[in-house]
Amino acid sequence: MAIQVMKFGGTSVANLIRIKNIAKIIESEVKINKNKLVVVVSAMSGVTNRLIEDYKKVRQKITDPEYDVILSTGEQHSAAIISTLLNERKIESRSILGWQIPINTDSNYSKARILEINSDLIKTLLKKYKVLVVAGFQGISKDDRITTLGRGGSDTSAVAIAYSLGLKSCQIYTDVDGIFTSDPRIVKNATKINSITYEEILELASLGSKVLHPRSVELAMKYGIKIHVRSSFKRKTGTMVVKEENKIEKEVVTGITSSENESKITLKGIPDKPGIAAKIFGTLAKININVDMIVQNITDDGKFASLTFTVPIEDEKRAVKELKMSKIKFKNIDSKNSLCKISIVGVGMKSNVGVAKKMFETLALKNINIQVISTSEIKISVLIDLKKKKIALNALHNAYGLQI
Amino acid sequence: MAIQVMKFGGTSVANLIRIKNIAKIIESEVKINKNKLVVVVSAMSGVTNRLIEDYKKVRQKITDPEYDVILSTGEQHSAAIISTLLNERKIESRSILGWQIPINTDSNYSKARILEINSDLIKTLLKKYKVLVVAGFQGISKDDRITTLGRGGSDTSAVAIAYSLGLKSCQIYTDVDGIFTSDPRIVKNATKINSITYEEILELASLGSKVLHPRSVELAMKYGIKIHVRSSFKRKTGTMVVKEENKIEKEVVTGITSSENESKITLKGIPDKPGIAAKIFGTLAKININVDMIVQNITDDGKFASLTFTVPIEDEKRAVKELKMSKIKFKNIDSKNSLCKISIVGVGMKSNVGVAKKMFETLALKNINIQVISTSEIKISVLIDLKKKKIALNALHNAYGLQI
Repeated sequence: MAIQVMKFGGTSVANLIRIKNIAKIIESEVKINKNKLVVVVSAMSGVTNRLIEDYKKVRQKITDPEYDVILSTGEQHSAAIISTLLNERKIESRSILGWQIPINTDSNYSKARILEINSDLIKTLLKKYKVLVVAGFQGISKDDRITTLGRGGSDTSAVAIAYSLGLKSCQIYTDVDGIFTSDPRIVKNATKINSITYEEILELASLGSKVLHPRSVELAMKYGIKIHVRSSFKRKTGTMVVKEENKIEKEVVTGITSSENESKITLKGIPDKPGIAAKIFGTLAKININVDMIVQNITDDGKFASLTFTVPIEDEKRAVKELKMSKIKFKNIDSKNSLCKISIVGVGMKSNVGVAKKMFETLALKNINIQVISTSEIKISVLIDLKKKKIALNALHNAYGLQI
Repeated sequence: MAIQVMKFGGTSVANLIRIKNIAKIIESEVKINKNKLVVVVSAMSGVTNRLIEDYKKVRQKITDPEYDVILSTGEQHSAAIISTLLNERKIESRSILGWQIPINTDSNYSKARILEINSDLIKTLLKKYKVLVVAGFQGISKDDRITTLGRGGSDTSAVAIAYSLGLKSCQIYTDVDGIFTSDPRIVKNATKINSITYEEILELASLGSKVLHPRSVELAMKYGIKIHVRSSFKRKTGTMVVKEENKIEKEVVTGITSSENESKITLKGIPDKPGIAAKIFGTLAKININVDMIVQNITDDGKFASLTFTVPIEDEKRAVKELKMSKIKFKNIDSKNSLCKISIVGVGMKSNVGVAKKMFETLALKNINIQVISTSEIKISVLIDLKKKKIALNALHNAYGLQI
């Protein structure tokens, strides 16, 4: 008897037709492949948002544990409905909730982190049932109260349960065929990536590609759990998320992604003294604003510097206001949005020269002006005019040969 | 510090306006009367029906424990919303679910019975919180699975919790002012009853007056818990449900009620032998049909009897079919609906003669034909033509002086 962990997201359980579809996938795993299954499910799509709305009509503060009590009903409902359908089809099944397993978490209500999963009950119940349907996204605090894991938490539930059962892999079913080299709605030639490393997908995810929740990937990376991201509509191999050493083809660039959530703020005429950057970013950190790309220049006379950085678009006004009100000295401040951050990601970059050069050349050929550049070991990001997004993505996609 | 148990039904928590209304009641109990509260809530009105629908789209059999997992989300949601609102208004509160208390029940999923409530956690939490909002209608089986108590189960939760806390009473808030001498929509002179015995309300409830769930009354009767049925819209005394010895005014007739759910079946020409009634009713019991009123007559020659009884209207056809197919001998069978059962209820009947006589006389004066009569210690029921319902109810209401 092999145990498999499969996770189905909100769109896979959106309505009865879709639930019947995943029941077929489950049925074939049970009857043909003779596997015992732990199926982790999200709430039906739209339900969590509706529950958040219900809560927010009454209170804004989401650290009240009642928020978690309300939100957890979404997965409780979907897990029980799916289990009911399986039972109706004579596949012995039962739902199991976060507190029943238990999935022990810390007490950070609304965004709790899993501390430990006791898999004894799962193992015991799998002797009696063919399928356990786990309500994802939820756990229990040491005070015996329901916790929820924050957005995308069901992915994390699935990976953590796979680990607790000593498994080497887990399947995440979604409404796309896998992870793509770029957004297929913008880049027509975008193709499915067969295998991708944890590091790459983390860069892609934080840059706006939302297939897997970053925390689930971090957890999988930490414990070496292979994640198979695949479609719940087609029975085809999707994308394997693996360790770098398990990735055979180390492409220079694995994927290209874009994000429109950036505002650029430039401070000019800052006295060029040590500690000034710390003051500026400290001021923003205090009001909870996350700074992303940063570029500093020193002017010709060596006395003044200019500093450019990006913040989330919704924080732009707050950031400018706070800096103006602060005691930090500068000659002027200006901000700009309607920008787009384009990033190329690939573990192959580490051992390949000329990757950045090709990016800049490709954009120059299309007459696209680069406003800010930032790099990491496996990523190069540039900030460009939003209007040029589509041209840039397609040109880069071709330049790095991702259309194959 | 006094502890009070208050239960709010579905219509009292139907929407945010109503929830804010009950928050005011709670607030005044906490701030003015300095009470600590255990508030038991139902699901918002309509929610349980919607959840049953969700389930029944997938499966009809409701003994699958998943049914309870789904239905219990309704009270989980309303308890958490109410607790959130109280917290927002600085009334320290938390929700508490069946499994958290725990409310231990048997494993009759969808209609579990409470076995035991451990009130230690409630007592401990009441030191920290001013209000605990209990999700009614739910418990936990010995297998650590969620159970639900069946329709009206939240009333039962409230009474059982009051008992477990050693309290002598509990308040049930509803959308009416209390229990009435008759249905005010039909009998204009109907008045609120100030006090009523458990026995009387059980007769009234099972006869179609649905203010309190019979099981909650049985429980309250067993443990001597006084129930105060009152309006969540008006701050006025409602109806006290008490032991017979605590009821000072023992009216001959406390209330008059009607039910339209009866079909009359008559079997003629049955051989008058011992055991024949047992055969007839055994046949119906086997297919789960509840027989209510029964009258047997023997014909003049003493050899044949006729038997008349009532069954729920929805079972009429099944009952007739089953009897025709059985081996029971009779000359003919006929059935009739468009009937109405009128019942007068009152503990005072026991020590008063002439109660029945007045009923029959009153109906005769109005030219209303009585088709079947049945009586218990504190109740007389008659079956009449449905068309005469309003006339009968009003005439009897006046005859017994209930309009005061």
